Amino acid sequence: MTYSIIGTGGIGGYYGGRLAQAGHDVHFLLHSDYEYVREHGLRVDSVNGDFMLPSPQVYNDAAMMPLSDVVLVCLKTTNNHLLPTLLQSVADEHTIVILIQNGIGVEEDVQRQLPHLQLVAGLAFICTAKVGAGHINHQCYGQINLANYSCKDEKRLQLIAEQFTQAGIPAAQVEYHEARWKKAVWNMPFNGMTVALNTQTDILLKHPSTRQLIREQMMEIVRTAKQLGVAGVDEAFVDKMIDMTDNMTPYSPSMKLDFDFHRPMEIQYIYTRPLQIARQAGVPMYKLEMLEAELRFLEDGRSLT
Amino acid sequence: MTYSIIGTGGIGGYYGGRLAQAGHDVHFLLHSDYEYVREHGLRVDSVNGDFMLPSPQVYNDAAMMPLSDVVLVCLKTTNNHLLPTLLQSVADEHTIVILIQNGIGVEEDVQRQLPHLQLVAGLAFICTAKVGAGHINHQCYGQINLANYSCKDEKRLQLIAEQFTQAGIPAAQVEYHEARWKKAVWNMPFNGMTVALNTQTDILLKHPSTRQLIREQMMEIVRTAKQLGVAGVDEAFVDKMIDMTDNMTPYSPSMKLDFDFHRPMEIQYIYTRPLQIARQAGVPMYKLEMLEAELRFLEDGRSLT
Repeated sequence: MTYSIIGTGGIGGYYGGRLAQAGHDVHFLLHSDYEYVREHGLRVDSVNGDFMLPSPQVYNDAAMMPLSDVVLVCLKTTNNHLLPTLLQSVADEHTIVILIQNGIGVEEDVQRQLPHLQLVAGLAFICTAKVGAGHINHQCYGQINLANYSCKDEKRLQLIAEQFTQAGIPAAQVEYHEARWKKAVWNMPFNGMTVALNTQTDILLKHPSTRQLIREQMMEIVRTAKQLGVAGVDEAFVDKMIDMTDNMTPYSPSMKLDFDFHRPMEIQYIYTRPLQIARQAGVPMYKLEMLEAELRFLEDGRSLT
Repeated sequence: MTYSIIGTGGIGGYYGGRLAQAGHDVHFLLHSDYEYVREHGLRVDSVNGDFMLPSPQVYNDAAMMPLSDVVLVCLKTTNNHLLPTLLQSVADEHTIVILIQNGIGVEEDVQRQLPHLQLVAGLAFICTAKVGAGHINHQCYGQINLANYSCKDEKRLQLIAEQFTQAGIPAAQVEYHEARWKKAVWNMPFNGMTVALNTQTDILLKHPSTRQLIREQMMEIVRTAKQLGVAGVDEAFVDKMIDMTDNMTPYSPSMKLDFDFHRPMEIQYIYTRPLQIARQAGVPMYKLEMLEAELRFLEDGRSLT
């Protein structure tokens, strides 16, 4: 199978790098680092072992990429308006497009724009970042859960999961709605609260007021998921997420990094869409609505100084 | 009637100053400015006309103050644990004690500590600040609403309102619960939100997300007041408060100033107590609960940098 990686940052560089290292035919789309990687290759420092791809197949124009069996979309959702253009040559109705992206409603919106594609959600549990031109640093975890949204070829999806795992990327198949809403339980409180209060996950959990607030926000998601009939999103899962975060090293979620580096935040899919869905289901998520409003205000730079 | 002013800051200095200027027998308790005011007097710059009290009756020890007919408590509620000591000499069961303080539940808690006192809530609508030693700057408004909590002497309370008005302090009597909850409609959203987002009233109302959030927070108070049977706190009043704030000069509420100058914030009475009352009434104020949690976190200085 041929793989194409749309967006060679922390996620795309690591997963694509692992697949290439395992001998797969991988094509990387790059933007600012294209010249550098073409000359110097792609370097991956990883807790699971460093490696180097001296001459990866790189492109700076998606139109030049080959039609592929599997496409990993590793862009921020804030760039999703570019997908119809970026996927035009690389994906057709036989391609499985894995959206390794944050939030709720992503697949629905992409499918509306590109009805012929077979979409799969990729939920990455990984700490990885691009730390320099053509230089990826993978610090922890690495698993990817694949949640089928509209892929008709179950067999090939299973093969993809196997190839991922063999390449050193533990991959499992999971139910779509459960996976997306479970991830929201962690993502919605921690991404926004670290921005709103300019802090880190561990500090939020150490203060009794914000520890309780985080739990209440998670419980808002539990109530919405329950109303929507989504399985597995319950109070026990909230306990598990808080325990897990207590045991993580102090962590700045992707939205905090985006805000600090003046990149657009993924407010639309991490907040706006799930909040709409909750309101429509008659179970508004009040505290997360407030967080969205604060983030919209902060994104527009309205604070003093 | 004799007046004593407990706390000669922006509020106490202005109201006490006006009463003394009108010829009343006024006694001022001072703390850090005591020596300065004893030597140089009290200066009041006011939109309604500047004036100077060359030799006000000043004290730096409440125990030395005379038993008074009327006491104006002009301290922040964060100092209310001092009231039993501060009021011991100056107030007895015949004294009318006017608490010119922010929040909900203040009178209930003071009354529990000092059951013999006749308490009145004083709701000040004024922009005034101490800008230097013995130097008060009164920028706008000035009205005080008197809301009887436990004063048995209605006649004397009426006389106080008249003496205030004659001294240039427009004073009216209002219903206690309505007055306190109406003030909360403005105080709860704007005090905390200017701190949480490091901004001003006008900027909050100019951004559509926070404008809507402020309105939703106000509506939480409307729902609670309705459940408690408090009159006059309705959506029309919310519209009025937003209109009024749209037409105000950009403003930093007292909590914002307290936070910026590293003074304790009045979280207990502006948030914690009304939030408790709302929960007990079965109408939690979710977004204001979140704001309280953020303020507790910020007060403890947990943000990065």
